[in-house]
Amino acid sequence: MANQQPIGIFDSGIGGLTVAKAINELLPNEQLIYFGDTAHFPYGDKERKSIQHYGDKIAEFLLKNNCKSIVIACNTASSACYNTLRKSLPNNFPIYDVIHPVADYVAKNHRHSKIGIIATKGTTNSRAYPKLISEKAPNTQVKSCATPLLAPMIEEGFFNNNISKSIIKSYLTKKHIANINALILACTHYPIIEKEISNHYKSIDHDITIINSAKVVAQKVKSDLAKKDLLSSELVKNHEFFVSDYTKSFEQSSEIFFGKSVKLQKIQLWK
Amino acid sequence: MANQQPIGIFDSGIGGLTVAKAINELLPNEQLIYFGDTAHFPYGDKERKSIQHYGDKIAEFLLKNNCKSIVIACNTASSACYNTLRKSLPNNFPIYDVIHPVADYVAKNHRHSKIGIIATKGTTNSRAYPKLISEKAPNTQVKSCATPLLAPMIEEGFFNNNISKSIIKSYLTKKHIANINALILACTHYPIIEKEISNHYKSIDHDITIINSAKVVAQKVKSDLAKKDLLSSELVKNHEFFVSDYTKSFEQSSEIFFGKSVKLQKIQLWK
Repeated sequence: MANQQPIGIFDSGIGGLTVAKAINELLPNEQLIYFGDTAHFPYGDKERKSIQHYGDKIAEFLLKNNCKSIVIACNTASSACYNTLRKSLPNNFPIYDVIHPVADYVAKNHRHSKIGIIATKGTTNSRAYPKLISEKAPNTQVKSCATPLLAPMIEEGFFNNNISKSIIKSYLTKKHIANINALILACTHYPIIEKEISNHYKSIDHDITIINSAKVVAQKVKSDLAKKDLLSSELVKNHEFFVSDYTKSFEQSSEIFFGKSVKLQKIQLWK
Repeated sequence: MANQQPIGIFDSGIGGLTVAKAINELLPNEQLIYFGDTAHFPYGDKERKSIQHYGDKIAEFLLKNNCKSIVIACNTASSACYNTLRKSLPNNFPIYDVIHPVADYVAKNHRHSKIGIIATKGTTNSRAYPKLISEKAPNTQVKSCATPLLAPMIEEGFFNNNISKSIIKSYLTKKHIANINALILACTHYPIIEKEISNHYKSIDHDITIINSAKVVAQKVKSDLAKKDLLSSELVKNHEFFVSDYTKSFEQSSEIFFGKSVKLQKIQLWK
């Protein structure tokens, strides 16, 4: 496999662009091909089987585009598609989700900690993180907290202001996640408000490690592709960003998530 | 048709309970059968055809339960299902959506006004209200404003507090809806924050009529069933509330929307 082939990244929408951003920052020589399945967004309330079907189609598209690796940059798709895609791809093909690298990271760095997880209702109800973390680090205490207003709040541009500050405070002061030592941001949207979350804890003198899952996944991709000798030494082609349903508003929000201007191309994978 | 038969009401979720509440307050002798299609919630991002299929199945269920009338208490379903259901039901069968009664109300009471509409992105993009209002009252100016954070904000219990106050203010002070004389609450969730919206306008000395579409629909149902001599003179059976997917959290939120405790029963309409 040629080192200069792109890394494929997909999500149900554009939130996964925070993962693309983290990978781009850590591996600036890698070309990225991003696919946001905006026609089916959000995956949270879809049947597992439908999501697996979407994932298969998207992976097929990324492989046709010559991707040397695939990153599932979406929590719901990670939980629904990772194992099925893992099985259907060649044995050694580098595929990553957003849950396993975080569980590994916790097992390595936060064993015996009290870990809080904030996520959408779908991710929280799936218990994907607590299950995997308790396998890999049985002595870690995990407390999940659904924070369903954060993703729409960020999508609608309410952040770095008094509204987001109040909403964040109201979630993070809930009793059952009060005594944690580390907090996993288990939604691809949340890196946008990492600083605000950190400021909240500073304001109440609560010493805590914030685990930005986008960065953890990017680290995992970097170290694993390096091991496989698959990293590129120079950027030879521009990144490409595809969506299954185009709106101007998606394109505007994309900039927030990727951190710079993004040109979305609509492509029809489904009839 | 016997006057004591129930009125059937359906929505993609539990927001339509605000319409059920308005009907119940105006017509306390009517038994209500409510169906919330929580398994497919939200309808906003679903294909029109799928929503029509859901609507057909739900109407079938309500008719099997002997309903003398059907109210589509959901904006997306109104726009997708009203015409198809209208055609498939007997000519004189009383079926109501949430859009036509509001357009009629505007044409009667607010002709020549500047009307603002707040709604979800789906409803705003469909342009269902402006289209119908411009047919019925061509000299009315209509300005739509998508307020996508309001529904999740209400669902998550953020209302009557500083957070909701700030979010409401930030939407309602947008320039293009600044000079309106009347505001249509074009989402079944919004009656919950009608008072807060009204307080916002009071605080800036803006004289405005707020059009609560749940109440307008209830009035329409009352006057139309009276005309058809279909009103019940006493409540003979308890209301029933069905959902296609049950969670404790739906049941808790139901109380907010219906204004009193609701016992949800799960029923499987789809295999």
